[in-house]
Amino acid sequence: MSSVPDPPPEIPGLQCVAIGKDSLLYRKPRDPPTNPPVVDMRSDTVTKPSDEMRLAMLEAEVGDDVYCDDPTANKLETRAAEILGKEAALFVPSGTMGNLISVMIHCSGRGDEMLLGDESHISFHEQGGSAYLGGVYSKIVKTLPNGQLDLDDVRRRIQTIDDPHFATTKLLCIENTHNRKGGRVLTPEYMEQVAALVKGRGIKIHLDGARLFNAATALKLPASKLTECVDSVNVCLSKGLGAPVGSVIAGSKDFIAKARKLRKALGGGMRQIGVIAAPGLIALEKGSKRLQEDHDNAQLLATGLAKMSELGVQIDISTVETNIVNFYVIRDDMKAIDFVGSLEKRGIKMLVCGDVWVRSVISCEVTKQGVEFVLENIRALLAGK
Amino acid sequence: MSSVPDPPPEIPGLQCVAIGKDSLLYRKPRDPPTNPPVVDMRSDTVTKPSDEMRLAMLEAEVGDDVYCDDPTANKLETRAAEILGKEAALFVPSGTMGNLISVMIHCSGRGDEMLLGDESHISFHEQGGSAYLGGVYSKIVKTLPNGQLDLDDVRRRIQTIDDPHFATTKLLCIENTHNRKGGRVLTPEYMEQVAALVKGRGIKIHLDGARLFNAATALKLPASKLTECVDSVNVCLSKGLGAPVGSVIAGSKDFIAKARKLRKALGGGMRQIGVIAAPGLIALEKGSKRLQEDHDNAQLLATGLAKMSELGVQIDISTVETNIVNFYVIRDDMKAIDFVGSLEKRGIKMLVCGDVWVRSVISCEVTKQGVEFVLENIRALLAGK
Amino acid sequence: MSSVPDPPPEIPGLQCVAIGKDSLLYRKPRDPPTNPPVVDMRSDTVTKPSDEMRLAMLEAEVGDDVYCDDPTANKLETRAAEILGKEAALFVPSGTMGNLISVMIHCSGRGDEMLLGDESHISFHEQGGSAYLGGVYSKIVKTLPNGQLDLDDVRRRIQTIDDPHFATTKLLCIENTHNRKGGRVLTPEYMEQVAALVKGRGIKIHLDGARLFNAATALKLPASKLTECVDSVNVCLSKGLGAPVGSVIAGSKDFIAKARKLRKALGGGMRQIGVIAAPGLIALEKGSKRLQEDHDNAQLLATGLAKMSELGVQIDISTVETNIVNFYVIRDDMKAIDFVGSLEKRGIKMLVCGDVWVRSVISCEVTKQGVEFVLENIRALLAGK
Amino acid sequence: MSSVPDPPPEIPGLQCVAIGKDSLLYRKPRDPPTNPPVVDMRSDTVTKPSDEMRLAMLEAEVGDDVYCDDPTANKLETRAAEILGKEAALFVPSGTMGNLISVMIHCSGRGDEMLLGDESHISFHEQGGSAYLGGVYSKIVKTLPNGQLDLDDVRRRIQTIDDPHFATTKLLCIENTHNRKGGRVLTPEYMEQVAALVKGRGIKIHLDGARLFNAATALKLPASKLTECVDSVNVCLSKGLGAPVGSVIAGSKDFIAKARKLRKALGGGMRQIGVIAAPGLIALEKGSKRLQEDHDNAQLLATGLAKMSELGVQIDISTVETNIVNFYVIRDDMKAIDFVGSLEKRGIKMLVCGDVWVRSVISCEVTKQGVEFVLENIRALLAGK
Repeated sequence: MSSVPDPPPEIPGLQCVAIGKDSLLYRKPRDPPTNPPVVDMRSDTVTKPSDEMRLAMLEAEVGDDVYCDDPTANKLETRAAEILGKEAALFVPSGTMGNLISVMIHCSGRGDEMLLGDESHISFHEQGGSAYLGGVYSKIVKTLPNGQLDLDDVRRRIQTIDDPHFATTKLLCIENTHNRKGGRVLTPEYMEQVAALVKGRGIKIHLDGARLFNAATALKLPASKLTECVDSVNVCLSKGLGAPVGSVIAGSKDFIAKARKLRKALGGGMRQIGVIAAPGLIALEKGSKRLQEDHDNAQLLATGLAKMSELGVQIDISTVETNIVNFYVIRDDMKAIDFVGSLEKRGIKMLVCGDVWVRSVISCEVTKQGVEFVLENIRALLAGK
Repeated sequence: MSSVPDPPPEIPGLQCVAIGKDSLLYRKPRDPPTNPPVVDMRSDTVTKPSDEMRLAMLEAEVGDDVYCDDPTANKLETRAAEILGKEAALFVPSGTMGNLISVMIHCSGRGDEMLLGDESHISFHEQGGSAYLGGVYSKIVKTLPNGQLDLDDVRRRIQTIDDPHFATTKLLCIENTHNRKGGRVLTPEYMEQVAALVKGRGIKIHLDGARLFNAATALKLPASKLTECVDSVNVCLSKGLGAPVGSVIAGSKDFIAKARKLRKALGGGMRQIGVIAAPGLIALEKGSKRLQEDHDNAQLLATGLAKMSELGVQIDISTVETNIVNFYVIRDDMKAIDFVGSLEKRGIKMLVCGDVWVRSVISCEVTKQGVEFVLENIRALLAGK
Repeated sequence: MSSVPDPPPEIPGLQCVAIGKDSLLYRKPRDPPTNPPVVDMRSDTVTKPSDEMRLAMLEAEVGDDVYCDDPTANKLETRAAEILGKEAALFVPSGTMGNLISVMIHCSGRGDEMLLGDESHISFHEQGGSAYLGGVYSKIVKTLPNGQLDLDDVRRRIQTIDDPHFATTKLLCIENTHNRKGGRVLTPEYMEQVAALVKGRGIKIHLDGARLFNAATALKLPASKLTECVDSVNVCLSKGLGAPVGSVIAGSKDFIAKARKLRKALGGGMRQIGVIAAPGLIALEKGSKRLQEDHDNAQLLATGLAKMSELGVQIDISTVETNIVNFYVIRDDMKAIDFVGSLEKRGIKMLVCGDVWVRSVISCEVTKQGVEFVLENIRALLAGK
Repeated sequence: MSSVPDPPPEIPGLQCVAIGKDSLLYRKPRDPPTNPPVVDMRSDTVTKPSDEMRLAMLEAEVGDDVYCDDPTANKLETRAAEILGKEAALFVPSGTMGNLISVMIHCSGRGDEMLLGDESHISFHEQGGSAYLGGVYSKIVKTLPNGQLDLDDVRRRIQTIDDPHFATTKLLCIENTHNRKGGRVLTPEYMEQVAALVKGRGIKIHLDGARLFNAATALKLPASKLTECVDSVNVCLSKGLGAPVGSVIAGSKDFIAKARKLRKALGGGMRQIGVIAAPGLIALEKGSKRLQEDHDNAQLLATGLAKMSELGVQIDISTVETNIVNFYVIRDDMKAIDFVGSLEKRGIKMLVCGDVWVRSVISCEVTKQGVEFVLENIRALLAGK
């Protein structure tokens, strides 16, 4: 299909880094990586767009998306709907907006409530916007260590009696993989149990699938298998999938029509959005297929850490199911904050989540060599070298 | 500064369309324009990014902007603050979000109100989000044909008595240029009058400057001269300035710190935002300097239309101050909607705003030749040819 | 039906002031009125409950109204529905809550708007709660001097196109009699015109009938004749009708069911409410029948004031249709605020509404003698005596 | 002080039921109670005003409370502030409004959150109004069986880091006595522990003291001893204290000034409120002193039920600290709903709170004889008689 010379002619001092449909991109070779290299394991949100994504941005056909005139955005949305097994999909600037819109569509802003895990991203990391922008009350239920909601608690908290004292439960939110619980995976069987619980009671299910493709990869299932029981799903393109910006939400046609209107009110209606939809499409099609590598690297890191128990590292490797590695530094001379601070001086970035709790996340920014470099440095640091 | 060969080597069948700092972009020559060409005068939001902008996206240094780690976004925000004469600035996905954030920072969501022109964009075109997301009441004041608020009406509507019956006026919004009034320009003198009216009464001024650089161009003043009296300003990068996506808001450091937090709650916090900040920076630096051309083309269009009064076209050319041309088609055989429909078949897009009211907007997508083509076609259409 | 002795036996030093169904109330004769008497013309909200109302409170059968167990409240609501010609009615603590509930039921809190007169009580005197508690945007339309909305403006402001830029008009509010316009009366003919305008467009009509019975009295029509075209109505029991506390709203059964739930959330669900419903019922049945007396006294006041034009009093007596008398004090030596302050020293209370604008309201607290006393004093004050 | 004849003269066929300052009330003797009597143990909200309260209503001096002109309301508020040990107090129509106002004053509607017990009245029984009217997010913490919040959970949930991901904890709510936990009492020692936890972190404490005087009675302490550590308190006048309508909130002068304004927006600003403030004052002064009787009756009921374990009644009498008696009916042939339904036919009303959970509440409507009647009937019912 491409109309450009193949192979591309050479240009002295430059490298052909990307071959598009109608274009060639040459670039000065990048400087070799810093020494020691920087390994950023704070989050998979730090992933930078690949050259292929950048060229796609450059070539993207665009139009005014507020008028639904952007062909690239339309293509992304069509593909996302197919891949997620829903009627329709919508590009949104962030997962926070994707979740907010979903919650607001399933719950009116007056007297409706949702059941939300006490450790969920929506409850913890989205500023409580569901209440202050959406007017939705949250009935909080317990999250188990494996990322599942305690179903007994769910059962107890559902409130569908029509009485002036009570809000009405209209939504249950689940999270797959579960962020704060360390990337734990919800299985289709569990989700069916959840669905059975709310069935016929007027309660919708929203799936915060920011890292849904990590779950699909771990389960070796298509993503659509994990969305069968849910009414809406939010998937981040800019985490492990590698796009610079954006998320997609998917659901019924009616849901997406309402979402489009709400997105405009929130200020998420953008114009020639094709320039970011283009790398988003690559993230969706290709980024979702390379996550096993991240999981393998996470295993490498986890098993390496597990060998450092005598140095005060505590980790349960059975909990490492995807690309997140939570571990604990239990030492008299060092809190998590000191540990992470010392690592940073060695070019390694992780996040402090508690007194002794450290969080590291693998993404395409971290190679196998990077993990080995990290393990060496942790061992050296803890051994006082 | 560039490290690429100059001139760039030739590649048969391709054209070197953009020369970056470290890269060259070659592309297959585009197909000649359609015949008849499509001239899109619906809005200046339809502008597509230039090759220079696309290359900038491609080359943009990026980081995670939620952690303030994106160097390109930081650069855009620093420059925007300088150009707009404010302490700080923030990139936002859209003008709707920029206005919403500004309103919500100046007014609490409980018992505060803003004075808003009855024909303003915030009142008309933003879904009433200030009320439903922000909880801010709007006291509406009259807009004069020249885009100014009626100052007597403003004076009468200000409410600062502390009484349980009343909301308290905390904000006055103005719009420059004024969209629905046809791109009319507010002068610094007028804005000083507005400022004098609210001074010392605890009332802030927000400027919806979606097209502020059109006003600056018309007045031959730096944009910062038009923001002196205001506490915050919203400027769209994706209208006449030509960026694909985004707006910036500017104000005090404290205002921007609050705006950053609110942007996250609304879902406008994005990640490797440098890819869209880069063309935004070009829009700001260069796009703002080419607007005179659009204004000249608008004059050409307006004076051409003024010669068609015998064909039923009504226009007051003294109202055409920038890039918007409002006119009226007063004929028995043709309403605005028929007129616009017929034009579309000739490859010309305009917007119907009322029974006889047609709106056309000039942007970099419309050349002088385009305007001449449009005038010819309108004359032919109205003359029944 | 009464089971008490008739006439009641005498008790020395006491007076039998109220004869209930099962009870007699004796009270020490009240002290003669102060000299000079206090005449409170600030508002008809200052009316104090009559002895009959107080005895009714005392005798009221009560129950827990949150469980719909209060027989007196149920009776009041049934009668209110009948009198107002609607399926059902609900007692609410105030007119502000009655209007707020009505607005919130007709408009969702997300992207719906109402058309509201620029001089309406809901826009001016209710703290903008429709926006901050209800999330409803207000599109403001012009109020004519006679209390009507400008129908051309209404027509222009209706917005029912489904487009992500726009809020959708779902409600039109009218006010009868119109407070800020001086108790002006809307006729059934006008209301039919309003109804015709919104018919078939998904727009409801709410009538703020705080003083609806004043309008009915002026028009010599049953109140239900004035509610035929509207979907909901709010009537204050505690203004001219004389109850100490409360309003009723009326509408369809479905509307009232929703209103009951919303009232609970707002904190308006009370318990043994019969104690205030009982005087409310008397206000509704009897208070509504004595308003002609107030109107006559208002005429007496207005015609008296009209004779003082040479002293600087300006009044258009054709605008005095009910119990509110607006007039203007145009003098070099005295602003409205000075005038009202001086009157207060003479035992007369009125309200300052502007530089020269004075507002006086007649209620059962003001007798014919009271009006004559007021006129004498105003003449003396202005004549410098 | 009274100016009426003492003793009051006799009137044949009538009884003098109340002697006021300036009045005497005679009433036909009431019919003897129904046989079997109705014993309403659903809640202490069902209490009906005493004759003394009714006469106080009748005699109440009133004014327009929106203008702070009602002397009786002012007196109630002054006394409530004194009794609750706070600078100022405010009458509100209901406890729901009292809690809502308090939450809304301590938390802005944008990005603030409160810590709320998972079994609290505010979380369960107020329709989620804090979210939909107030925009406040709720971080839910665990309630222990004794009505205390789990302090470890509180500690873990406090969030005061300024980061765009997080809402900021601004309020902690406690409930004394605790409704759903069966009237359990919080001690001053526990409250000091709570206060120590949030001290110096910008977090306020609100006490939902709907039944605060029950706690004070159980602890034999003045109510003010239980409000020392809190910033605001809500106390219901219409539960065990016996008033027909209303609650009071108390706090700092600034808090109450804001509360007054917010009450008006919510529609809780009423006019001649003295008619309900008068019985409220009696409830506060006298009703609070008779609660020991209710507690004694609750003990009588609980110990009676404890003797029916062989009939399937389960109760832990150590949990009965005030006037609420929770018990469980564990039988194959009878669920709670059947049990309560059968009791109702015998003239006894209780509430079903779960499959086997029955709730009964003692108030001044229930005498010792009533409790004995109830015990007899339960025994007979369960024994199949």
